[in-house]
Amino acid sequence: MTDFAATKAMFDLPEGVLYLDGNSLGPLPKAAPARVQQMLTDEWGQMLITGWNKAGWMAQPMALGDRVGKLIGAEPGQVVLGDTLSIKVYQALAAALDLVPERRVVLTDSGNFPSDLYMAEGLLKTLGKGHELRIVDPEDVADALTDEVAVLMLTEVDYGTGRWHDMADLTRRAHAVGAVTVWDLAHTAGAVPVDLSGAGADFAVGCTYKYLNGGPGAPAFIYVAPRHAGRALPALSGWLGHEAPFDFHRKYRPGHGVDRMRVGTPPVIQMTALECALDIWDMADIRDVRARSVSLCELFIAEVEAACPMLTLASPRAAERRGSQVSFRFEDGFAAMQALIARGVIGDFRAPDIMRFGFTPLYLDEADVRAAAAIIAEVMTDRLWDRPEFRVRAAVT
Amino acid sequence: MTDFAATKAMFDLPEGVLYLDGNSLGPLPKAAPARVQQMLTDEWGQMLITGWNKAGWMAQPMALGDRVGKLIGAEPGQVVLGDTLSIKVYQALAAALDLVPERRVVLTDSGNFPSDLYMAEGLLKTLGKGHELRIVDPEDVADALTDEVAVLMLTEVDYGTGRWHDMADLTRRAHAVGAVTVWDLAHTAGAVPVDLSGAGADFAVGCTYKYLNGGPGAPAFIYVAPRHAGRALPALSGWLGHEAPFDFHRKYRPGHGVDRMRVGTPPVIQMTALECALDIWDMADIRDVRARSVSLCELFIAEVEAACPMLTLASPRAAERRGSQVSFRFEDGFAAMQALIARGVIGDFRAPDIMRFGFTPLYLDEADVRAAAAIIAEVMTDRLWDRPEFRVRAAVT
Repeated sequence: MTDFAATKAMFDLPEGVLYLDGNSLGPLPKAAPARVQQMLTDEWGQMLITGWNKAGWMAQPMALGDRVGKLIGAEPGQVVLGDTLSIKVYQALAAALDLVPERRVVLTDSGNFPSDLYMAEGLLKTLGKGHELRIVDPEDVADALTDEVAVLMLTEVDYGTGRWHDMADLTRRAHAVGAVTVWDLAHTAGAVPVDLSGAGADFAVGCTYKYLNGGPGAPAFIYVAPRHAGRALPALSGWLGHEAPFDFHRKYRPGHGVDRMRVGTPPVIQMTALECALDIWDMADIRDVRARSVSLCELFIAEVEAACPMLTLASPRAAERRGSQVSFRFEDGFAAMQALIARGVIGDFRAPDIMRFGFTPLYLDEADVRAAAAIIAEVMTDRLWDRPEFRVRAAVT
Repeated sequence: MTDFAATKAMFDLPEGVLYLDGNSLGPLPKAAPARVQQMLTDEWGQMLITGWNKAGWMAQPMALGDRVGKLIGAEPGQVVLGDTLSIKVYQALAAALDLVPERRVVLTDSGNFPSDLYMAEGLLKTLGKGHELRIVDPEDVADALTDEVAVLMLTEVDYGTGRWHDMADLTRRAHAVGAVTVWDLAHTAGAVPVDLSGAGADFAVGCTYKYLNGGPGAPAFIYVAPRHAGRALPALSGWLGHEAPFDFHRKYRPGHGVDRMRVGTPPVIQMTALECALDIWDMADIRDVRARSVSLCELFIAEVEAACPMLTLASPRAAERRGSQVSFRFEDGFAAMQALIARGVIGDFRAPDIMRFGFTPLYLDEADVRAAAAIIAEVMTDRLWDRPEFRVRAAVT
């Protein structure tokens, strides 16, 4: 049984803040500042170039990949870290399309991250073979799976509403029509149990700075099913994905397995911070996290709906169709969220009208949720958001 | 006049080490551990998601890009940081090829980084239009510039030998045949004066962990000439390169200027370490750095050649044809370099037989060079490298 008081104590949470935005950027593990400082001083400072071997920097993308893999149903050697999620989407989609060269449709849905759509758009343009990016509504995905579809590319949990696709079912349906799947786990890794092997997923990608708490700009990850790992060609064929990077051959030869999805020099300092976050994940069982997430979300929905009739639930009401976040629609959601942040309840806003709240049992408990709901009730009931300073938009919200 | 004693005092250099590998990984700026710790604690820890605006994280890739730009002859707004060098090579080459759609040859030379060749190979395969990657010897590049050539893609200073291309001359010749240029500055940014504007370069890319001292895994940079910045399309069209990333539109619209070369979430912790290195660069004039680099290299060549007849100079003898590194060929170069490292002289080895030494005036002085040359003389004359333990190869050397 996961000791959530113990995991909560491992995070540095600011006084007076109720942080419901761990689905956007997780908080600081208390161990990170000292560990990063030690890495800088003792590893970079003292070992210099020899740190790549002596401190194990070069092996980190696979070693940490294995640790992330445990949270998403992957075996060791099937996940590697690096780059950003957008880059990993490009690699996964390129490799997936290469497996189905005769088809021309990439099927996705309107609940996917815009960035995933942009990366797909850029790749399809680069391929120049007339591929179509077909965007349907989330509930129409199953019906849109025809034998035209080369790749089904979906984000498992919708970043806006929290709607949760059934990965196993859609993967089975995709395979039935001869399509290959690319799953974006940005809002599922560390949020809900993911079983890539059990679902038969082909490719998966995700980031480590949301529910995994790796810090701003933490590296992304990519999973390649073992049946594809020896065939999948990364369009981004960098030297660290080469079979023998330090032989400095002029011709690219893909490395073994998921190694080939490495590209350039790994971000060692970011990976060190991420390690501290994964140490906390080692204390948790993702099934316990899910059970507690459901109970926190249910409590939150009940409290907010009871006090705030002006807010409309945007997330699925059924827990089994919802990730670890709860969203409400409200016309003045931007201003309302700014007012909440001013009161110490940090969620975020997604255009056009979504107020989004993430639930992260590693460091949130029932008392936090009740306190947050009480502040939301006050801000909404007393229209405390209706002030000019809460309407000023900055670059990131 | 640059105060090199002052710049040297800003680095944390281990006792008993003569570090001649700053062309591979620069050393730790003394300010970095405290500054990174402060960023982790006060920014990530206290600001959480609001750090993207409040701490200026989102603006860092352009702000630091401007600071790197000053060292390479670019104006503000022409350089942006992000990703790895390999990814930036892909973006620059894709954008360059898009400007010359009717041609099918990418010209490069055998002195280019293998990783640049691999990335080009992957891009040309992805494009699937029958492009040829034509690799000639460095001295044959000028003659190989024909009107078949779409893009001339070169690394300005050869990572192995230190041979320095004439960027202005080759760019002029490339333009004369209607080709577009992509310059890799990995071994020139912070090593020698670079004048991208003056040379009329089209695209340039580089890394910040070598001569710029940004730390292991520090982000790469990309320069786009202003005449192309509004036209060049990044194949990697990520959300942070979108004109309005936080509007979450489904269609990609490239941002203004070099902004569009941004892809995903920037590596904030790495950028914080890089900032400390750029603070030291603010104390230096690159012309002073170059003058001192030449004198250190000349001294090193003279001392080593006088004592070590078994070593053959692999770098150009003429200073004006050489970057800020000196390489010698030696059949047992791998073992010899291991023996040097065991004695505290850190250089590196590049297959098949190159012993490579980097010269970095920000933290190396004449006494260091004399001391290193004396140790090299002893190791070579007494064949101290000829022991089994120096022949064991690890992953990174």
